[in-house]
Parts: sequence; C-alpha cells; structure tokens
Amino acid sequence: ANDRPWEDLLRHARSGDPQQLTDCVEQLSTGDQARALSRLSEDERSEVLTALSAEEAAELIRCLPEMQAANTIGMLQVDTAAAIVHELHSDEQADVLGDVSSEQAEAILQALPDDEAAAVRELTSFADDVAGGLMICEVLRFHENMTVAEVIHQLSANEDEYSDFDVQYGYVCDSEDRLIGVIPMRNLLFAKRSERIATIMIRNPLSVFDSTSLEDLVEFFDDHSFLGAPVIDAGGHLRGVIHRDAVDYEATRAVESDYLKSQGIVGGEELRTMPIWLRARRRLSWLSINVFLNLGAASVIAMFQDTLEAVIALAVFLPIISDMSGCSGNQAVAVSMRELSLGLVRPTEAFRVWWQEVSVGLINGTVLGLLVALAAFVFNGNLYLGLVVGVALLTNTIIAVSIGGTVPLLLKRFGVDPAVASGPLLTTVTDMCGFFLVLGMATLMLSKLVTP
Amino acid sequence: ANDRPWEDLLRHARSGDPQQLTDCVEQLSTGDQARALSRLSEDERSEVLTALSAEEAAELIRCLPEMQAANTIGMLQVDTAAAIVHELHSDEQADVLGDVSSEQAEAILQALPDDEAAAVRELTSFADDVAGGLMICEVLRFHENMTVAEVIHQLSANEDEYSDFDVQYGYVCDSEDRLIGVIPMRNLLFAKRSERIATIMIRNPLSVFDSTSLEDLVEFFDDHSFLGAPVIDAGGHLRGVIHRDAVDYEATRAVESDYLKSQGIVGGEELRTMPIWLRARRRLSWLSINVFLNLGAASVIAMFQDTLEAVIALAVFLPIISDMSGCSGNQAVAVSMRELSLGLVRPTEAFRVWWQEVSVGLINGTVLGLLVALAAFVFNGNLYLGLVVGVALLTNTIIAVSIGGTVPLLLKRFGVDPAVASGPLLTTVTDMCGFFLVLGMATLMLSKLVTP
Repeated sequence: ANDRPWEDLLRHARSGDPQQLTDCVEQLSTGDQARALSRLSEDERSEVLTALSAEEAAELIRCLPEMQAANTIGMLQVDTAAAIVHELHSDEQADVLGDVSSEQAEAILQALPDDEAAAVRELTSFADDVAGGLMICEVLRFHENMTVAEVIHQLSANEDEYSDFDVQYGYVCDSEDRLIGVIPMRNLLFAKRSERIATIMIRNPLSVFDSTSLEDLVEFFDDHSFLGAPVIDAGGHLRGVIHRDAVDYEATRAVESDYLKSQGIVGGEELRTMPIWLRARRRLSWLSINVFLNLGAASVIAMFQDTLEAVIALAVFLPIISDMSGCSGNQAVAVSMRELSLGLVRPTEAFRVWWQEVSVGLINGTVLGLLVALAAFVFNGNLYLGLVVGVALLTNTIIAVSIGGTVPLLLKRFGVDPAVASGPLLTTVTDMCGFFLVLGMATLMLSKLVTP
Repeated sequence: ANDRPWEDLLRHARSGDPQQLTDCVEQLSTGDQARALSRLSEDERSEVLTALSAEEAAELIRCLPEMQAANTIGMLQVDTAAAIVHELHSDEQADVLGDVSSEQAEAILQALPDDEAAAVRELTSFADDVAGGLMICEVLRFHENMTVAEVIHQLSANEDEYSDFDVQYGYVCDSEDRLIGVIPMRNLLFAKRSERIATIMIRNPLSVFDSTSLEDLVEFFDDHSFLGAPVIDAGGHLRGVIHRDAVDYEATRAVESDYLKSQGIVGGEELRTMPIWLRARRRLSWLSINVFLNLGAASVIAMFQDTLEAVIALAVFLPIISDMSGCSGNQAVAVSMRELSLGLVRPTEAFRVWWQEVSVGLINGTVLGLLVALAAFVFNGNLYLGLVVGVALLTNTIIAVSIGGTVPLLLKRFGVDPAVASGPLLTTVTDMCGFFLVLGMATLMLSKLVTP
C-alpha cells in the first residue's frame, strides 16, 4: 500500500474514474482520510471532493477537524458545497456553516431545501457550548393520540430515514408540539397494538433547555445514565435531542483546548497545514505579551547590578531559581485546573487551597533548596552563596505553589479564562520574587559573599 | 442550604437516622456529592458510607475519581465493601478492585457471589486501556434457536435486571457461546413472533477483540456510528459489550493526563485531599530531575564568567532568553501533541514538521528578537548589546520550535511518553543553546560591548 494516500486520491480524481476514487477513499481508515485530505493543497482538496458523490464527500468532511472542514466547504462551488452539506446531520451542518463566512453560509443555505435551511438557521443561532448548539433535530416525534400500531407503522415505513436516529426513545408531543412524554422503544414490544401511546408513555420526562450550558449538561449526564435527552425551548416545545456523545465530545474539546491555551496556543486550533502567517501571528499574540512581562521581571535584576558585579556566580543561579519556581507553580496550576473541572473545588475556596499548597511547598522547597545550595557550595566553595540561593529557592517555591494553586480559582471567580492567564501571571510574579530574593539577600550579605 | 454539605452528611450518619442521611445525599448533585465526600477524613467517609444502604453507597462511590473511589473502598470493613462493590457494574468493579491492594481485592472477591467474582477476575486481567478492560459483562445474550416470542418473554421476565443494560442490540450466540449475529431490538417490533431469531439477525456482525487497544477503539467508533460493539476473545466467544461512552471517557482521561504530565504531575491523579507526603513525593520525583537538568544548563553560564563580569547587563537578559525560548518551544510541543492525537501526523514525519516549524520560528524569532534588542539598547545605550541578545533570541527561537515540534514525534517513535519528557528535554537544550549563543557572541564582540 502507498504510504502517501493523498497522491492516489489526487490521481484518481484527475483520471475521471469516480469508482476508483471511491474505492480508494473507502480503503482508508478515518484517521488516514483526515491525514490524506489535510496533506492536499486547497485546490487539490476541492478537486477530490468535487469528483466524489456528495454522500462520500460528506463522510470525508466529517472526519476533518472543525475549522478545516469549514475552510474546505468554503472553497467549493456553492452547489457542490450545498449538496455535501445536505448529507450532514443538522448539528454538523450548523457547525460547518457557523465557521464559514456569512456570505458563503447564506449562499449555501439558499441552495438547501427550505425546512432544512430553517433548522440550520435555528441551530446556528445558539452558541457551540449550550444544548441548542449541540442537539440534533432528527428525533422520533409522535403525537399523543397515536396508537402503538400507528407508531410501529410509522417506524417501519420510515426505516431508512430513521436509521440514523437515536432509536432508544420516542418523544410524545401534544397538538402544540409541547413535549409531554417519552416512550422507550423497547416498551412497544410489550404493549398491546391498539393501545394509545399516551397511556403507556412516561409522563413529565426529564429534559434540558436549549439554553442549558455545557457544564450543566455534563452534570446532567453524570447524574442520569441516559444516552440522550430531549431539548425543549422556554415554552416547552420539543426542539431536538442531545446525545451524551455530543456532550462528552465537547467536554473533551474543552480539556484539550485548556491544555493548548496553557502552552500558548490561544484563539483556536492550530494545524500545521494552515498558512504560515496565520500560525505565526496567533502564536505571536501570546508571545509578545510574555516578552513584556519577562522584561518587567528582568528589570529586578537590573536594579541589583552592583551586587551581581561583585558576586558574578549569582548570575548562574538566577535562571535556575526562575525555572524551578515556574515548574513548582505550574504543578499547582495543573492540580487546581483539574480539581476545578472535576468540581472538587469551588472558586471561593482559594484560602483552603492555599493552605494545602503551602505544606507541599515547604517540603519540596526544602529539598530543592538543599540540592541547589549544595550545588552552589560545590561550584563556588562559599557556604554563604549556598545559603542565599537555597533559602531563596525554598521561599520562592512556597510563593510559587501559593500563586499557582490559588490563581486559577481567583481568575475563574472574576470571569477570566484560567487556562490562558494562569501561566504568564505565575511566571512573571515568581520571577520577580525569585530575582528579588536572591539578589536582595546577596546584597545584605555582600561582605560574606565576596571572597577577598 | 448549607454550603458545607459534608457536615450535614456526618451529622446525619452519626445521629443514627439512615432516612435523613439518604435524603441529604439525594438532595446533592453528583458534583456536590463528590466534593462533600472528598472533604471528609478517611474515617468520617467510612462512617457515612457504612450508614447508607449498599446501593446508595455505590452511587456515591461512582461519582468519585477512580483512585479516590478505590482508596475509600479499601478503608471499609470487608463485608461493607463487598456489599457496595456488588452494586457496581462489572467494569466499575474491575476498576475499583484493580486499584486496591491485592489482599483487599482478594478478601472482597471472596465475599462476592462466585459468578460475579469470576467475571471481575476476568476483567481485572486486562489492562485499563484495552477493550477487555473497558467492556461490561452485562449483555443481552440469546441462543440462535430462540424464537422472537421467547426473546420478548425473556426481556419482559427480566425487565428489572435488564434495565441497566444496553438495550439497542441483542447478541446471538451458538451453543458454544461464539458470537454469530446481532439483532437490533427495534427489529423485533416488525418480526413475526414465531420466527427464529437466527433468520432475522444480522450475520457476521462487526466486533472488537478483548485485546483491541484504546487507539484502535477510538478509530473503530469514529468509523462506525454504533453506540456499542460486542467484544469477543481470540476464539470468537462473546465476552461483553463495549460502549462508545467508555471509550470516549478513557480518551478524555488520556488527554487530561497528558496535560497534567506536561506540567509535571506524573504518576497518577493528584487530589489535594491526598496525604501531603504522597503529594510532595510525587511532585518532587519530577522536580528533582529538573533541578539537575537546570544545573547542567546553567553550567554553560559558569563557563563564561569573565565575559559576564565585563558586561554585567548580559545577566539581565539570560533569564529572558531562557523563558521566551521555552514558551516558543512549548507552543510547538502543544501543536505536535495535538496533531499526533488527531492522527494528522505520523511519528515518522519529523522532517516535514521541522520544516513547517522553522518558517514560523523565523517570523516569530525576528519579531521577538527585535523587541528584546530594542529593550537592550534602551536599557543600556549600547547598540551591540542589542545586536547580541536580538540575534541570540532569533536563533534560539528557531532552535526551540525545531526541537519542540519534532521531539514529541521522535519520543513517540522510540516508545517514550512525549507528554512527560518533551518539556524538560526542550527546556534543557534551549537553555544551553540560548546561554551559549548570548555569552559566546558577547565574548567574540567583547571589545564593542565594554564601554570604556
């Protein structure tokens, strides 16, 4: 097999034999499909997707990361794009059209059947991380007056269309489309065919509002072992169904995005297939803030130039103090971020967290301080130099874990994203404190440090 | 409502009124249940769980993070623990008993019914991240000779027991328990009651092996829109069913654990309710390696003491070069980790990734280098100092993104966990290169830097 499947895709797309292209696509796993597509240039990708049937092109679009899927759809001819979008589920349609330009989205919507376009317009009106943005509109919907036999008939008559649906539950509505009950499909097996479904349904079913937040949805599915839940609007009308899967997927994305943000990949997913200037600009927006913070922290060193000049060995230890305090602080940040996401700690409990971090900081600071003090003594032969850097690292470790543990809670409490801001804030403060501790103590003990 | 629900739990547990305790537990959301339990001491937690019915205690255990759940079970009397474990699903039983000491696990297994103990023993024999460790044994299992009527009868006779099961599909086995077909429960609605299920089942259903890895399972559920899949052993016998949920959950845990590991929380989840010494020791194991790497990198500075002594302003910029290069490199690490997890890049494609990083590094290094050069010039008035630190930062940014982008791929290729090792490796090498660049160039241009 060829290890560069994107070359095969392109060759078959250009040879004008759609069957060969289809075979080639189907032989690839979804992972390889995504990899192959993302390796093609934008024009080549259009060629391949246009050569495929809309249904197969939709399968390919589905396996791409969201932004890339939207970019790809945006590059296609409107009618090709619309045909592909038509094959996607309503939630996928909303995701894709939410990420292309508004003119492109409008053009594609115009080319879709009216009811489909209306459903997508409704879904795109919700944010990505509330139930309305995560639900799908394809739902088994029955009227309360129907009998079991009528329901079974409707199911078997629409078997093809319903095959993509969540088939565990049917939802029962009144004449005004308000959700009044839910019926586990399995229960139809045990029911008399002549019975009205209103008599065997579960009344007042649990549901979520289209405005329910991701956090509350995660909690809802933690509390209840449902695979899906009906979504209603403020008036009680059934709007769609939200799957546990969609909630889990969005929650994973949130964790992943926190990780990326903490490392300075801010403002959306970066893929190396994106234009260089875009990637550079996004990364720079975070780096350039950091460079100013760094200059601020380093200005502390500049204040102590005379001390440094007298005891040049101190310069060797400044980066160590800075880096080690950063490491200790980031560990505390990571634990706080995790406890926040698990709901084990509340933003108001900063004091408790601080206390729990101080104890760990005292132990680790002592061990690290002793190691560095020993290294300083061996390197320089001056016991006091060891004392200065050791005590500075001990003190600064306690400061670093205190800040690292509490800052995510405080940021969250004041509505700032802790994943983005915790790291730079932590590093700046611990650098300043660390430099000040080392150089300040050295200045006080200068006579002991300068070997005559 | 009391904002400290753990106090209520303890009071009710001690008052000897189980109903009040039960009410109190049921009023809490799962999030609050976890928070409240984790706030109690180990002994208090035992008191509360022992005072509850086994079924309710199991609900509480279920909402705790895995390690904490196991620790809690390990502290209880064996018979109480066994009664609670009995109420858990087979996969949860395996998770909990896999994390307590082997003597405790053996004692609890002895107290369980024989068939249950056998199922758990089988599950615990699998790793956490293969299908066998993620599956559950509760599965709708029918013999090929059964009729539709018999299946429906079995379903309705066992309605209570089956209510926890995945009820979308039933699995059909031959007399030797080998999986030969799958039957969507919904199809029973349309079938004649006298028909044999072997005639209406889907033959040769897709299945996964008990040894299938998490990575392959993610791919399987990406490729197929099933909510679950049957798990078979090498001989084709049906062992259980694996849910998409369990795979998604385990994948989220893997992402989360990568984030924690990259920040130096290695060797398992840390919660602040764990003993201080354990938390300190775990964090230290990573920090102490880092301190040695740091000392190694800083020894480069020591080699250039004469230059530093002559141009003390350089000491101000060393930590900036170190920190900024680390930031740029970590961005590249984060993008590589993400592309690896999305399958968009293969460990063998390090060269391509390197090239894509160099271009971004060139742009960002130029901008950052200019900023720092300007700062150096303003601070010190010497144009050559600006030149030295600017060129050093430009060069070191390119080095940092090159290492950051490729190291995760190379580590993965050689079987080392990139989440743990990428960061320290990156920081050490970029620190050494950065210090060497600044101080080496300064040594060469010493006559221009020293203002007479």
